[in-house]
Amino acid sequence: MIDKILSTYKVVLASASPRRREILSLLSIKSEIRVSDVAEPITDEDPALQAMKHARNKFLEISQNAGKDEFIIAADTIVVLDGRILGKPRDEAEAQEFLRALSGNTHTVISGICVGTCRNLQCAYESTVVQFARLSDAEIADYILTLEPLDKAGAYGIQGFGSQFITRLEGCYFNVMGFPVRKFYETLQSMKQEGSL
Amino acid sequence: MIDKILSTYKVVLASASPRRREILSLLSIKSEIRVSDVAEPITDEDPALQAMKHARNKFLEISQNAGKDEFIIAADTIVVLDGRILGKPRDEAEAQEFLRALSGNTHTVISGICVGTCRNLQCAYESTVVQFARLSDAEIADYILTLEPLDKAGAYGIQGFGSQFITRLEGCYFNVMGFPVRKFYETLQSMKQEGSL
Repeated sequence: MIDKILSTYKVVLASASPRRREILSLLSIKSEIRVSDVAEPITDEDPALQAMKHARNKFLEISQNAGKDEFIIAADTIVVLDGRILGKPRDEAEAQEFLRALSGNTHTVISGICVGTCRNLQCAYESTVVQFARLSDAEIADYILTLEPLDKAGAYGIQGFGSQFITRLEGCYFNVMGFPVRKFYETLQSMKQEGSL
Repeated sequence: MIDKILSTYKVVLASASPRRREILSLLSIKSEIRVSDVAEPITDEDPALQAMKHARNKFLEISQNAGKDEFIIAADTIVVLDGRILGKPRDEAEAQEFLRALSGNTHTVISGICVGTCRNLQCAYESTVVQFARLSDAEIADYILTLEPLDKAGAYGIQGFGSQFITRLEGCYFNVMGFPVRKFYETLQSMKQEGSL
């Protein structure tokens, strides 16, 4: 299990996301947060490659000053609708635009992770398909009033009020929350097997 | 949204499950817990019908003494593997047996809900397909040591250590946690539309 593999390390989470920290807590992993100030520009590149690159940049910034007993976890989550990447909305108007675009449609959530020590790192990604219910303008307005959409990629949070708008998902739920738990475990297992942990 | 539809009611949760209460909290629904002592015998009947029947029995017991301003939520969750219903394991040996059976396989989680007031009720169910990773005996032993499997239908919890064993799901995540949020919202909307709320 994950906590067993990491038991000899001090875990550092290179992310300010309270949701990622919460997921690690569910796995009994205590983590110290060290946030990097790497910018995450959205480009035309393949979304999975972008997510992994952003995670890798966060990882590299934090690992420069990491101790040998520290295990660093970096992640980046991207929402993709019809080839368009939806970042965090700039304001309420953009949140409304994003939610109207998601309404009644299926989109993909991709999380890239980059994890390891100051000596070895491994990157991976996971993608999950999410089906949104058709939302009325009143529902969108009410949802924006909760403020939940404003600080989240794609303008929704699956673990809060947003849960009532999701009719179906295919893949890893935690990936949509921001951290692909199973993929992380598989990555740890592969690092252990190849002797880099 | 759910909290808007229920805003004039006092919500009563006819379940002792901390996970169901947690899901309601995510939706900003404060609930009072009133547990019924209805037995939930497993029979050969269709699992979805059983889950709804169990939820209905819990609902009816609590609604007998409910006030007119109270909205009651009852739910029952069932894990089905190859037509066999896996309840809560009796002991560690049965938890090990369940986890070995789930390992490397796909199973279905069905939640039945019965919700409403002392005057009107509606039942529904949701089913989600869950794919389990292949687990080693060591992983199963370590997982049982966490005690998480012992009080859960199917001997695992998707929102805890169990998350690392789930490779994929299809459907509603919250349904696997014990409460199908989207289906509940749709049920509320239909009750409102037909004037029973």
